[in-house]
Amino acid sequence: MSTPARHRRIVLAARPNGPVGPEHFRLETVDVPQPADQQVLVRVHYLSLDPYMRGRMNEGKSYANPQALDETMVGGTVGEVVSSRHPDFAPGDHVVGNLGWQEYGVAEGKTLQKVDTSRVPLSAYLGPAGMPGVTAWYGYRKIIAAKPGETVVVSAASGAVGSVVGQLAKADGVRAVGIAGGPQKCDYVVNELGFDACVDYKAAKDPRELGRLLKDAAPDGIDGHFENVGGDVLNAVLGRLNTFARVAVCGLISDYNNTAEESARSAIQNPVMFLVARFRMEGFIVSDHLDIWPEAMRELTGMLADGRLKYRESIAEGLESAPDAFIGLLAGRNFGKQLVKLV
Amino acid sequence: MSTPARHRRIVLAARPNGPVGPEHFRLETVDVPQPADQQVLVRVHYLSLDPYMRGRMNEGKSYANPQALDETMVGGTVGEVVSSRHPDFAPGDHVVGNLGWQEYGVAEGKTLQKVDTSRVPLSAYLGPAGMPGVTAWYGYRKIIAAKPGETVVVSAASGAVGSVVGQLAKADGVRAVGIAGGPQKCDYVVNELGFDACVDYKAAKDPRELGRLLKDAAPDGIDGHFENVGGDVLNAVLGRLNTFARVAVCGLISDYNNTAEESARSAIQNPVMFLVARFRMEGFIVSDHLDIWPEAMRELTGMLADGRLKYRESIAEGLESAPDAFIGLLAGRNFGKQLVKLV
Repeated sequence: MSTPARHRRIVLAARPNGPVGPEHFRLETVDVPQPADQQVLVRVHYLSLDPYMRGRMNEGKSYANPQALDETMVGGTVGEVVSSRHPDFAPGDHVVGNLGWQEYGVAEGKTLQKVDTSRVPLSAYLGPAGMPGVTAWYGYRKIIAAKPGETVVVSAASGAVGSVVGQLAKADGVRAVGIAGGPQKCDYVVNELGFDACVDYKAAKDPRELGRLLKDAAPDGIDGHFENVGGDVLNAVLGRLNTFARVAVCGLISDYNNTAEESARSAIQNPVMFLVARFRMEGFIVSDHLDIWPEAMRELTGMLADGRLKYRESIAEGLESAPDAFIGLLAGRNFGKQLVKLV
Repeated sequence: MSTPARHRRIVLAARPNGPVGPEHFRLETVDVPQPADQQVLVRVHYLSLDPYMRGRMNEGKSYANPQALDETMVGGTVGEVVSSRHPDFAPGDHVVGNLGWQEYGVAEGKTLQKVDTSRVPLSAYLGPAGMPGVTAWYGYRKIIAAKPGETVVVSAASGAVGSVVGQLAKADGVRAVGIAGGPQKCDYVVNELGFDACVDYKAAKDPRELGRLLKDAAPDGIDGHFENVGGDVLNAVLGRLNTFARVAVCGLISDYNNTAEESARSAIQNPVMFLVARFRMEGFIVSDHLDIWPEAMRELTGMLADGRLKYRESIAEGLESAPDAFIGLLAGRNFGKQLVKLV
């Protein structure tokens, strides 16, 4: 199939103050760019949607630079090389890159990674064999560093990151407890991913009841926690930590949509717990730790290739579905890694 | 002087719900106990008053077991051996121990430490050469671990722990910034202890102004923080942390007096800072880490003996003054390590 002259992209049309809506995005049709020297033209097959994108839609200081207005939404992609002016890439190569919310894109060759799709499917390089998987690996292996017999909790347990955290724990002989929204996700976490227990946070009518459900699921207390959510979930977990517990803060999705008025609920309510349990809590972003990528990928692709690491994808069809899929991701409506399939 | 038959002690008379008052203590006159085999009778010279005692006055779970009602208030002491049934101790020996708020006390010999008062005065073994000094050393050396050129902040900077933190930092070539209450304490921190700057938190009319004062005092941001206070002070510091900062949580004195209604103010207001600055925050209690005691004491007594480590004591006279002195300590009215002198 020949490359068209025009293609579609989605740009940030306005910055949200509160919940994200369709009005914050704009679908445009523009010329397909041509690669300059050392660049590569890629046709995007799958686009990754991730909670961190919400932080970048804000103007203020966040843990990433803000997304520019009227520019293509930034995001991770997998795709196929269409034409190349970089010696390492040829048409037909499969590559991971950050081409964003568009059907075609040009990137510097040095920003692309060629991937082997013979053992692991292409889309998995956006999930368990990509940024989410390596994020899970870093927080679990380098911050939580659980020992056999300990208990590790992970929130958003059915998601792309959380599902890997729990499966790494189980492989180590660690008790894995998930927190997820709804019975369907909890059933998946326990019966398909093999976690020991899962707490349905939507079944708790208040933070106190959430604490009780957590106590039942982690009767020996919590030695490690991998936080993807924040708010009531985080506060409930902090109240159940054992002495010298480790808390890896990967994401605080419940806070990203907050207006100033709502933020009181996201506060860490009882800092004296830091002294009661003498725990350590550490925020991290995997891109600060690229040195661990090869070690993490060896373990993750090995587990994927022999079926020990299971995952699920939530696939929206067509570029135009990306805004709705992203809004659904922020509301927890996805089930597994949220992708948009373009080809 | 012969040992009297009767002596005085102070017991916990009632548990406070909110601020501590004189009504929570009772002065009693009781028999002086006699040592059994392996025990030692000690005459207490100085009693140490410490914020952690407030936590122990509560019934609920805290980071230490609750103080028993109608029992002698627990606390660190230095004193002199009066009679001994333990082979390692003889009358006249100076010892550090936990004999509590009383004039005489019996302890197992194995719970006492003999100390050398030829290089360091006896009372310093309750301050810079004792638990407060080693607490400062652990949090600064093992959690904050600052590099030359970095900036370290410590709250309650004129106190027994904070003053040591800042002087250790200065000795390392680290910028030391104190936070203290009032111009007199700030003057002491900068002009006598040698900190680079000090923020008077009482001069800030709201948390926002506290943040601005902190920005002026730490213009390159904050790489390490040693927290003794909590509440607005902690929140202001967290908002100024540099990437990969380390926060050692040693005490949260502003929270100990709280009723449930007041605790909202003590919450950590903006947990997204964990991702913005990817910092690490760790609570600790020095008694979990007794293995570092000899190494810490070598450095601290060396600095004390040659005058490089300065300290100040706030001395109340007579056992009967202990409750008022303790209430003053919780209100920040002491200046330097709070002691009660009994002999």
